[in-house]
Amino acid sequence: MIKLAVDLKGADRSQEELLPGVVRVLSQDPGLFCYLLGDRTLIEGFLIRNHLPREQYEIIDSPDTVTNHDNPADVIRKKPESSLMKGIALCKSDPSISCFVSCGPTGALFVSAIMVLGRIPHVTPVLLCEIIKDDGTRLCISDCGANIDCGEDKLLTFARMGKVYMQSRGMENPRIALLSNGSEDSKGNELVKKANQLFRKTPGLNFIGNVEGTDVLKCDAQVLVCEGFAGNILLKTMEGAAKSAVSHAKKTAEKLSEPARTEMLKALREVYLNYDYNSSGGAVLLGANTPIVKGHGSADADTLAAVLSIAADIGKKDLGAKIREEFS
Amino acid sequence: MIKLAVDLKGADRSQEELLPGVVRVLSQDPGLFCYLLGDRTLIEGFLIRNHLPREQYEIIDSPDTVTNHDNPADVIRKKPESSLMKGIALCKSDPSISCFVSCGPTGALFVSAIMVLGRIPHVTPVLLCEIIKDDGTRLCISDCGANIDCGEDKLLTFARMGKVYMQSRGMENPRIALLSNGSEDSKGNELVKKANQLFRKTPGLNFIGNVEGTDVLKCDAQVLVCEGFAGNILLKTMEGAAKSAVSHAKKTAEKLSEPARTEMLKALREVYLNYDYNSSGGAVLLGANTPIVKGHGSADADTLAAVLSIAADIGKKDLGAKIREEFS
Repeated sequence: MIKLAVDLKGADRSQEELLPGVVRVLSQDPGLFCYLLGDRTLIEGFLIRNHLPREQYEIIDSPDTVTNHDNPADVIRKKPESSLMKGIALCKSDPSISCFVSCGPTGALFVSAIMVLGRIPHVTPVLLCEIIKDDGTRLCISDCGANIDCGEDKLLTFARMGKVYMQSRGMENPRIALLSNGSEDSKGNELVKKANQLFRKTPGLNFIGNVEGTDVLKCDAQVLVCEGFAGNILLKTMEGAAKSAVSHAKKTAEKLSEPARTEMLKALREVYLNYDYNSSGGAVLLGANTPIVKGHGSADADTLAAVLSIAADIGKKDLGAKIREEFS
Repeated sequence: MIKLAVDLKGADRSQEELLPGVVRVLSQDPGLFCYLLGDRTLIEGFLIRNHLPREQYEIIDSPDTVTNHDNPADVIRKKPESSLMKGIALCKSDPSISCFVSCGPTGALFVSAIMVLGRIPHVTPVLLCEIIKDDGTRLCISDCGANIDCGEDKLLTFARMGKVYMQSRGMENPRIALLSNGSEDSKGNELVKKANQLFRKTPGLNFIGNVEGTDVLKCDAQVLVCEGFAGNILLKTMEGAAKSAVSHAKKTAEKLSEPARTEMLKALREVYLNYDYNSSGGAVLLGANTPIVKGHGSADADTLAAVLSIAADIGKKDLGAKIREEFS
């Protein structure tokens, strides 16, 4: 039985709006068990009405909610009865829980998780995010912004963390690349040049070289390593530029006659969502003693279901143990 | 009379393919004069056939061509008879030439220009590039990749250089921003945080704060300052992501019935070219004693015409003198 802890409060949507995602994922996978953090009466009523087997969940009543107005550093002290803090405390007390899932405030989630759960020895917590390349396959960006101003040793940690993560997502020996200003090994700032040399001589790393911005969505890599500042610029810029291109195309699509107009607008909407990294899927924080999957604040039941299946993958492949092994 | 020097060799296209761009720009602006570096007989024949007034040009016969196979460091010594080197030598000997324009190899052009022409005192050469924002207005990225690994003082140089450049393009007091991982002043890596503080206290700089990747194409800034590594990642990533979005949309457009199909594909082609930073427009190198405008190697007559009008603006506003004044 894979055990997850799921925080159902603190997101933009209500618990009732998110619960269909939980029901769908648990119904499809009888080997999955969820601790559900939120309002007991409400959750219980919903799950019974939806005939979810009792042995697949346990509700932990959590009267309080962490919001974006809370100072991340104060949450541990001030909101022990929140779904977020009760979930983290539960993970701390029960190491058999594979993953904690929340769509609550990012800062409070990551700060509390690292402080309460503690870090895996010798490991820097890393923030990863999956994007879909042009060929439909996945690329993991590591790090997406948790670690700013770091050395090449940290970049090696991001690479190894990305490797282990993508293994949990079904890739045997993930191809790893470095984000740079040119594809040649000689290109890069001082950090990337040093990291390139370090990666080249690191055994067990399937390093395929540097990738430049133009090629991120069509490269062969499965893990793209970057310092957190560059990773943040990369992800946000991809989202901004792709949405800008879609909005330009939309102006013409709106002028077409039916049925072409509707068909084209629908396609553009799908393209738009494809690059909507903030609201689709989730970011994964690895390096605390329990892996954390963060869904976007605006997540709906579909997003939550996608995020839960990442968390289930993490549990099935025992990612926590794999990270300990990789860095022992 | 504004004098430009124009290298017509070393690009992917032939001199005959590029010359219509020269004819167009000179015909539209009788106050413009071009030294044309290339094959005398060929250029002369073309311009006479096109009735271009003799007093608007002088041909400097240049038998040799610099190619991408030439080592940039060797070009000065090995190819003195090339159009590129003869053009730079001409700019060195005649300070009344406002700007040198070339679509030849970037490395050879910039290395030779800085070495032969020399730098303006107290100035780091900076590479600038203009992009079109969603509202149709222009944003200058400074620096685009010439300066990797630099301190906040260099970023201030990029800001001032971008300011003077955009003034030459008709903006009175350009709004300046810093590329960062968040819009708040407290966001950034160490470099950006220090630069933010420095910019805030620098008089005469219309600094409006930080801009994150998602907002680059819809921000209020007219100059976006970034260290060259980040600038390169930014530009290339925007191009890659926008083109990726267009190629996804194209799949649906191709399945539409006529005339919607043709109309939509045409619009998508325009969107694609809008983000094709490598082949549209040009990059500007400022800080050598003559400003340099670099058109892309794949430039056609239209691109060359666009690049020549940037060079003409630089000449009309006497950008070289303005830079000396700004940094004196």
